[in-house]
Amino acid sequence: MRPLEAALINSWSPVDWADCTVLVAVSGGADSVALLRALVAIRKSGTGRLIVAHIDHNLRDDSADDAHFVQQLADQLQVPAVLGKVEIDLTDEPDGVEAAARAARYDFLQAIAQQQGARYVVTAHTADDQVETLLQRILRGTSVAGLSGIPRAREFAPGISLLRPMLAIRRSEVEAYLAELGQAFRHDATNDQSDFFRNRLRNELLPLLRENYLPQVDQSLLRLAAGAEECRQFVTAQAEQLLDAACEQESASQVTLDARRLAAADPFLATEACILLWRRRGWSRQEMGREKWKALLALVGADSPAPIELPGQIRAEKKGEQLMLTPPS
Amino acid sequence: MRPLEAALINSWSPVDWADCTVLVAVSGGADSVALLRALVAIRKSGTGRLIVAHIDHNLRDDSADDAHFVQQLADQLQVPAVLGKVEIDLTDEPDGVEAAARAARYDFLQAIAQQQGARYVVTAHTADDQVETLLQRILRGTSVAGLSGIPRAREFAPGISLLRPMLAIRRSEVEAYLAELGQAFRHDATNDQSDFFRNRLRNELLPLLRENYLPQVDQSLLRLAAGAEECRQFVTAQAEQLLDAACEQESASQVTLDARRLAAADPFLATEACILLWRRRGWSRQEMGREKWKALLALVGADSPAPIELPGQIRAEKKGEQLMLTPPS
Repeated sequence: MRPLEAALINSWSPVDWADCTVLVAVSGGADSVALLRALVAIRKSGTGRLIVAHIDHNLRDDSADDAHFVQQLADQLQVPAVLGKVEIDLTDEPDGVEAAARAARYDFLQAIAQQQGARYVVTAHTADDQVETLLQRILRGTSVAGLSGIPRAREFAPGISLLRPMLAIRRSEVEAYLAELGQAFRHDATNDQSDFFRNRLRNELLPLLRENYLPQVDQSLLRLAAGAEECRQFVTAQAEQLLDAACEQESASQVTLDARRLAAADPFLATEACILLWRRRGWSRQEMGREKWKALLALVGADSPAPIELPGQIRAEKKGEQLMLTPPS
Repeated sequence: MRPLEAALINSWSPVDWADCTVLVAVSGGADSVALLRALVAIRKSGTGRLIVAHIDHNLRDDSADDAHFVQQLADQLQVPAVLGKVEIDLTDEPDGVEAAARAARYDFLQAIAQQQGARYVVTAHTADDQVETLLQRILRGTSVAGLSGIPRAREFAPGISLLRPMLAIRRSEVEAYLAELGQAFRHDATNDQSDFFRNRLRNELLPLLRENYLPQVDQSLLRLAAGAEECRQFVTAQAEQLLDAACEQESASQVTLDARRLAAADPFLATEACILLWRRRGWSRQEMGREKWKALLALVGADSPAPIELPGQIRAEKKGEQLMLTPPS
């Protein structure tokens, strides 16, 4: 048993996915090739049906070669592969090409997972991705909740979990594993050239921090993420309790909350309960910064305040002891 | 009214310290000189007794000149000054000279504050100190609680508050204020040459991050600190409730806790309650890392476990449904 395979078993035992269909997202880059090889190596014989999923974003000249490489690798490992192609209109993506490609990738994975009856969709994010995500968020600005970083597991669709079983494994371990196997891989398509900032964090800033400041900076960030995730779970559970207790009526057109309950709670928790409501309802939180949440909380605690309009045209109005939130019809 | 004076009033109204004695820690550096000048400028006439406190660590050749400068400034502003001198034995400081100097400085401030009947001790930490502290902690490794950074206010001794009223003010505002006044200052003695790491963060890394990565990195870190502080207050209040409910007996020689209550709580909160207990008892938390807290929590939840010895020779033993914590006698 090779070290990476042992680490993978430790993270996600093959017993847990015996008799399940597992969709493995494979870009052709080092991380996902290593994940596929290791899953094939550790699966219980005869059980755990693996399927490779690859999406061709058509963003680079050699993306067809990536698809070809993944198809060949899957054939060689005798794993069925589903290859998809998505055209992204570069001129019409307000959030950037990288975000659009990511959204398209996840839509594709979800469709294939449902079609194939997959129980799990697994991606090859490593501890290095986690470190980069943390540092990027800290520099760009994040809340404490954002410090949890990339989640190890989340519900992807009803009955389908999205899992990152390599999130505690370093990229150096991946490279060592592939070298041991003599396994080739493609330049990772997820290291998209369009995300210059991320690439500079990976290739310039993190090496500088390790060499000139603190060799253990990666460990510092990973431990912070682990602690923040524990904190987030606790806070979320408390916020759910508060939200459920405060919610008086909920329909597609309006949510009515008990303003007294929200006003009596710790302001931090009351804000978290509102964030949770926004998330549940799918209301845009993009522009709901600290100031907007504070404005909503101030409304909750005020006597006969004037209604306010929040981003996404959510109207917040206090009538007596009730807070009414109305999305645009 | 100059901008820095307005910002200071906004942060800490002179009404709040009218009729109080306020001890101002003045190193002679830009930040503390600006704080002193601004406090003198904004104090309500006839009220708010200011006293300058300066400590000479004797660590640099020109430290006597700093003391002389502070004495002259105080004389000129007609504010009484108390100057102290502390010898630090450089050969016998396990935590480093900077930590020893800091401890000596706070001991001195506390003694003078008590002697002078001060209600407040104020220090001149700025938003830039906060940014540096955050970045230093993130790189070196910190918990979510540590992201609160430098606290704006804390109890210093019974009846005496330690306050940092300039914590939202940028160093650039301080420099502009002193330039406007034509007020001289000394090279800040708190920028101690012994703390190379901190100086490199300030003079190399932060400028690099601002220029080559994100101009708004300071704002990102300050907002994170503000959010983390709100989270910390909520978590601390919850942890206090749990600790008070779980504490069955407390004496100098032993603390007895209700293990069932701790085991039933969210593990994150139970850990925070233990951290709070350690802080209250003054038990060393230096070596109580994630693993040690996890070991303690595992003991709490186990059936008839063997006792464990924690750092600082704290013995943890579970008997029936009671957790007994015994420090060395």
